Amino acid sequence: MNDGTNRQILLVEKPTGKLAPEHFRMMEGTIPEARDGEALLRVRFISLDAANRAWMHGATYRAAVEANTVMAGGGIGEVVSSRAPGLSAGDIVFGDTGWQEYAAVPAKHLTKMPKIEPMTYLLSVYGIAGLTAYFGLLDVGKPKVGETVVVSAAAGSVGSIVGQIAKIKGCRVVGIAGGQEKCRWLTSELGFDAAVDYKDGAVFKALKAAAPSGIDVYFDNVGGEILEACLAQMNNRGRIACCGAISQYDGVPSASGPRGVPGLIVVKRLTMQGFIVMDYMERRNEALRDLQSWIAAGTLKVQEDVIDGLENAPKALIGLLAGDNRGKRMIRL
Amino acid sequence: MNDGTNRQILLVEKPTGKLAPEHFRMMEGTIPEARDGEALLRVRFISLDAANRAWMHGATYRAAVEANTVMAGGGIGEVVSSRAPGLSAGDIVFGDTGWQEYAAVPAKHLTKMPKIEPMTYLLSVYGIAGLTAYFGLLDVGKPKVGETVVVSAAAGSVGSIVGQIAKIKGCRVVGIAGGQEKCRWLTSELGFDAAVDYKDGAVFKALKAAAPSGIDVYFDNVGGEILEACLAQMNNRGRIACCGAISQYDGVPSASGPRGVPGLIVVKRLTMQGFIVMDYMERRNEALRDLQSWIAAGTLKVQEDVIDGLENAPKALIGLLAGDNRGKRMIRL
Repeated sequence: MNDGTNRQILLVEKPTGKLAPEHFRMMEGTIPEARDGEALLRVRFISLDAANRAWMHGATYRAAVEANTVMAGGGIGEVVSSRAPGLSAGDIVFGDTGWQEYAAVPAKHLTKMPKIEPMTYLLSVYGIAGLTAYFGLLDVGKPKVGETVVVSAAAGSVGSIVGQIAKIKGCRVVGIAGGQEKCRWLTSELGFDAAVDYKDGAVFKALKAAAPSGIDVYFDNVGGEILEACLAQMNNRGRIACCGAISQYDGVPSASGPRGVPGLIVVKRLTMQGFIVMDYMERRNEALRDLQSWIAAGTLKVQEDVIDGLENAPKALIGLLAGDNRGKRMIRL
Repeated sequence: MNDGTNRQILLVEKPTGKLAPEHFRMMEGTIPEARDGEALLRVRFISLDAANRAWMHGATYRAAVEANTVMAGGGIGEVVSSRAPGLSAGDIVFGDTGWQEYAAVPAKHLTKMPKIEPMTYLLSVYGIAGLTAYFGLLDVGKPKVGETVVVSAAAGSVGSIVGQIAKIKGCRVVGIAGGQEKCRWLTSELGFDAAVDYKDGAVFKALKAAAPSGIDVYFDNVGGEILEACLAQMNNRGRIACCGAISQYDGVPSASGPRGVPGLIVVKRLTMQGFIVMDYMERRNEALRDLQSWIAAGTLKVQEDVIDGLENAPKALIGLLAGDNRGKRMIRL
């Protein structure tokens, strides 16, 4: 229970180099009250995402996060009290709760969620991660049966789902991940056809061996050198779904982009397409139906990495940027 | 008339840096005879294209051009004699004739052309340049009425047509070209709304002034720094039609690509798509109908840059790579 305080984690300084624990500070505020149109939430789970770090660089598809404010982040909350029509105490919602125990949020920025068990699925396979994987792969990547799909950050929340959906769709699937253990897990547990350990060096060569017929669809979560290696091995008319660039987020933005842009894009008639999952929200139910049926059929496994305690959010995010997680990382409050 | 010799220009050495006259040599061969399935052509016009230089770097959508062979290049020829069904003396054809006065070419690699005046239009507006502009802009760029279209190498063979088609389609059109004279010509003669002189420096700022509402479609002929400047000014859901990278062809390939790839592609949900006009050949008549009607209506002006004499081909290509031409450059034999 709670004594009336609202523990919050502030971003006290925007990092210029790598993100570190000293960029954050825990403080105790008071529990806010819901104003007209708002709901007061008790935050249950906070999603940790590479994008959290990208927001610190400046405005993207959302405003930049600023120093000396509660760190922004998506979360699952339970409505404590509501002054908004359509929401009432006990409802479960998703929204930008920030890194805190309680949040008063305008109802128009909240999405009411079904009550399912485990609730964590609302942040993993039925949340941003699952929907990103689903629409990014199927709508942007457009894989065909028999094609080779490569996904980077393959052991992460999005990548692990992308690869499994690609298998369901009849593709040859290669995951790129950091470390032999993750790579073994991708092939032995998730059914990937091959995995490339980027920490082993020689990514280009390993990728060539893992995708001997070239790459038809590359689902890019990382940008940088791995994008460059994939670009060079794309087949004619290949598609690159640009989902994120985690290799570029934690530090000074890179002064140059991958070689082969635009030369390889022209001669191979490639399409590189960026997307933001929010643009697909009206088609959300279509994705949820498929994801549910695949889980029920046992063809889609859900991997989560749940860490207890708000106070652990900073180091959990720092670890995520370094690739420590396997599957969807989140904080349980 | 001819004394039985076939003047030819060889590529004697593949350039490692900038292309120079000494990489070529004129020689006199004998006029070949058409073998079974071939037609003997008298070459009338040779197309000069930035792609000619790109072919020297290695295999692209065609095999690399090799040292000590006749320089490759598209041309318009008149059939002198034929040992192929469907072609007979007097027919006008397009194909890779190479830089020479006579060529024996397999009929399957030739396209029979209509007899029109001026014949040069078969290489400019009704040739690769016009079709590239048409399909690249409309099919890849997909401009909508009122959107801002930016095209680089705007005074070139493709760019000058791209900009005019975009005007016909109701867009605001900005051309990027080298030199004030070309820029004035784009706005005063071709009806572009604004032009940016990239030789004036400060391309980013000038582009911002010329496209104050941002860029919806960028037709990229150049790659490099201009692509980078455009990427940063693209509107959400903008499209970049990747046609070529002339800034990258003449010299050592660049060790890096444009900043903002993939970061800007993600957050702005951009699409970058490469294309090769050959992929659109079955839809050729659709384009020709439109192009003809626009020329007849006076809304599309054709600009050509015809240089006499095979011996002038090397310096004409070198000049094209430096941006000397206005409109479609070709050699008349």
